[in-house]
Amino acid sequence: MNQLTEVLHNISGAQHQYEVFSGANTHTPYLADTRQKYQRKLFDTLDEVLSRCDLRDGMTVSFHHAFREGDKVINYVMTRLAEKGLRGLTLASSSLMTCNTPLIEHIKQGVISKIYTSGMRGELADAISHGLMEEPVQIHSHGGRVNLIEKGEINIDVAFLAVSCCDEYGNASGSGGKSRCGSLGYAMVDAKYARKVVLLTESIEPFPYMPASIIQDQVDYIVKIDSVGDPAKISVGAARVTSNPRELMIARSAADVIEHSGYFRDGFSLQTGSGAASTACTRFLESRMRKHNIVASFALGGITGSIVDLHEKGLITKLLDTQSFDGAAGESLAKNPHHVEISTSVYANPAAKAACCDRVDIVILSALEIDTDFNVNVLTGSDGVMRGASGGHCDVAAAANLTIVVAPLIRSRIPTVVRHVTTRVTPGESIDVLVTDHGIAVNPARPEVKERLTAAGLPVVDIEALYQTSLVISGEPKPIEFTSRIVGVVRYRDGSVIDVVRQVKE
Amino acid sequence: MNQLTEVLHNISGAQHQYEVFSGANTHTPYLADTRQKYQRKLFDTLDEVLSRCDLRDGMTVSFHHAFREGDKVINYVMTRLAEKGLRGLTLASSSLMTCNTPLIEHIKQGVISKIYTSGMRGELADAISHGLMEEPVQIHSHGGRVNLIEKGEINIDVAFLAVSCCDEYGNASGSGGKSRCGSLGYAMVDAKYARKVVLLTESIEPFPYMPASIIQDQVDYIVKIDSVGDPAKISVGAARVTSNPRELMIARSAADVIEHSGYFRDGFSLQTGSGAASTACTRFLESRMRKHNIVASFALGGITGSIVDLHEKGLITKLLDTQSFDGAAGESLAKNPHHVEISTSVYANPAAKAACCDRVDIVILSALEIDTDFNVNVLTGSDGVMRGASGGHCDVAAAANLTIVVAPLIRSRIPTVVRHVTTRVTPGESIDVLVTDHGIAVNPARPEVKERLTAAGLPVVDIEALYQTSLVISGEPKPIEFTSRIVGVVRYRDGSVIDVVRQVKE
Repeated sequence: MNQLTEVLHNISGAQHQYEVFSGANTHTPYLADTRQKYQRKLFDTLDEVLSRCDLRDGMTVSFHHAFREGDKVINYVMTRLAEKGLRGLTLASSSLMTCNTPLIEHIKQGVISKIYTSGMRGELADAISHGLMEEPVQIHSHGGRVNLIEKGEINIDVAFLAVSCCDEYGNASGSGGKSRCGSLGYAMVDAKYARKVVLLTESIEPFPYMPASIIQDQVDYIVKIDSVGDPAKISVGAARVTSNPRELMIARSAADVIEHSGYFRDGFSLQTGSGAASTACTRFLESRMRKHNIVASFALGGITGSIVDLHEKGLITKLLDTQSFDGAAGESLAKNPHHVEISTSVYANPAAKAACCDRVDIVILSALEIDTDFNVNVLTGSDGVMRGASGGHCDVAAAANLTIVVAPLIRSRIPTVVRHVTTRVTPGESIDVLVTDHGIAVNPARPEVKERLTAAGLPVVDIEALYQTSLVISGEPKPIEFTSRIVGVVRYRDGSVIDVVRQVKE
Repeated sequence: MNQLTEVLHNISGAQHQYEVFSGANTHTPYLADTRQKYQRKLFDTLDEVLSRCDLRDGMTVSFHHAFREGDKVINYVMTRLAEKGLRGLTLASSSLMTCNTPLIEHIKQGVISKIYTSGMRGELADAISHGLMEEPVQIHSHGGRVNLIEKGEINIDVAFLAVSCCDEYGNASGSGGKSRCGSLGYAMVDAKYARKVVLLTESIEPFPYMPASIIQDQVDYIVKIDSVGDPAKISVGAARVTSNPRELMIARSAADVIEHSGYFRDGFSLQTGSGAASTACTRFLESRMRKHNIVASFALGGITGSIVDLHEKGLITKLLDTQSFDGAAGESLAKNPHHVEISTSVYANPAAKAACCDRVDIVILSALEIDTDFNVNVLTGSDGVMRGASGGHCDVAAAANLTIVVAPLIRSRIPTVVRHVTTRVTPGESIDVLVTDHGIAVNPARPEVKERLTAAGLPVVDIEALYQTSLVISGEPKPIEFTSRIVGVVRYRDGSVIDVVRQVKE
């Protein structure tokens, strides 16, 4: 062996220090120990895992929100971190929901001092809008989140990822086991970039649990817990299915727009964002696709049961699923070979070498507000309080060939079409058509689309006319009173700041 | 907008410079151009791609060897690089074969000055063994290669990856299209780590070509060429199917060893390395598995038609495929949902968060030489000339619960069992059993295995006895005459140096 050391010293052109072999398992000592060899990642309690993660004050922890309102992991882990006495953490959850109300206490106690999220709702959003946090919340899009991670602004120390099942090495899925969230599109990104990756799972399956969504070489620790989430609560709130006649009427009108837009041709691709009228639009596409003998090449993004239905009927060839919006989507992902799980990077990251949203022909998105310049607000309500999420809105709007926004003109006596949106999330230049229950407005930048829709006899009006109608119906809305303090920074998909959210006055 | 700039200046706690939004496509200008939006990665000729790769003298280029002797990309690309006048390149191919003879000229001309590879054969190996290169060749294992990449010793500037088909965004597969190599397990690693990734493909399929082995967000450029490889030549050479009676007899004897080893139980896992007797062993397992009512949980590594056969008969539940050794394996990968493609990192990287080889119960490997301390040489022939490859040999040998080496005692009058191997690739401590046509030797470190095999009536002998037998049959081999110059450095899977190869005398 000493001889080898000497020999290596004399190798011509050696640019690095060679290490001399010193035993088969010098660098893999776990191979000599049966328990370590097979189960070195498995722990009985989260506390055992946390003590191995080298978590310190000020670090960044991340989560995915695929269980939406049914998530049981974010609050659980944050409470454990609080109990461990950690302070000043950055919380980087792909999004936050009404179910995350318990985080308010952790913010008050200084456990969480900074938040990156796609959005927020309920009491947490209300409290933050009223000035709960010292640092403003950073609101990003789904694609923009990956961009911020890749740039290093979001630097995840530990990702805590809820999965319905995995094997002892961490090959994990959201479409097997009991509590299925379906696609792990958000989690796949965190699994790739986090310094440490912890899986919280309901079930340990026999190795090899492959193919898998998260792969063993990305996973550090695994802890089995009783429940990671309630899949029944995925399709409540923003992802609900509607039977509201007005929403259905708007959805049908959006289908008319699609049919006559010039983009409705064999092989077209589509995305329906969250929001009842948006997802409902799919239901009105079937007859139109059959009539024109059209099959879509793919549907992208949040996948719903209605989209799965079209897929199984042969009307959409592939489903590219970054988030399963209901149980039917999760089931389909588990059984349909052309229903494919994709990460949010592959979905919509503007800095990726390619994003699928760039190939979307038609996307249907919703809006809390849209102004006469077509700028869209999907974040703050008419009272200035945050109650929504950026999601993939600005990502797909920028990329799609035809971006349609669907919204009722008036919601509970509050106008949707306004002179200036309270918060700009998606720029008007990315929006092509607005479909309301009082008519359809086309962005002046797309005269050819306007021409086609008019020729088809659709009720095309100026967006200014819609605005005036809304004034007549609901009157001029009272301006919201804000303080000068900034509680939210709205990041565009490329990381730039497109708007800020100010603290509302009591 | 200026107002926003001012506002951002005054945000409390802002730790970074915010960029202010300046347009939906400021950072994604290609979205405004139809050709750029869809086909920005596609080029008609390799030269157009090369001029975009920013390749300079001294850089590292990489390739995979999944087409083995049928590869048409390595020589093609290296010739183009030579014609462009590049010099001093490091060639990091996952392995090199007899078909790579044309590289000799590029080494002579100074185009290639350093090589990382799992092995080499034919005239190239002969020339290098005789001193063609100034710098010694670095020989690594498959798992060790990933380790060297992750450590940064192999720092891939541009990966040129042969795929049978891909879409316009680079979602690629080796099991679709015409010239199928099957698994892209090697290429998946290069796609992940290379600074620039170039796909050479025979066919552009409609988007989205998903699920895919290489994903669009890993791919920079795509060039269509007439032929990337000849799949008929995958199963020649080391991966051939044997009808040699002696090899079949050894294979049968190895099956006996497996049956009585103590590791042959329901749910066991296995790998058969390349080499005729090793792959042939699978054919003798079926009856034994049926007799004992045993189903294997998975087979790992290089997958052959015989393994696919057992899988399709329900005798092996999952196939984890890092390299498809024949057309049947490639076909199976395309159609069998439990035939799963894995990267060489997931396969055997000792620095990965988990490697599948760690869960292998039984592996059957071959040897050019094995010495009385069970050290194995799979690299150099009895003349000292390189003619083999490290492959996954030391990776799986270190990890498996039972490592069996199969080899004839004498090959063309040259003994396999020797006092000291010419080149040590896998340390004796990792080898448990040697199966030859003159008896079975068990490593003294595994007395319980020896006991079981003896109890089963198998012809167990001391390895010293096998060595003495070989001396009687073929006489004491004449020592090889080497110069003092080192032409190859043999890296163990952890990156340490386990041996060196010296230049042979004329």
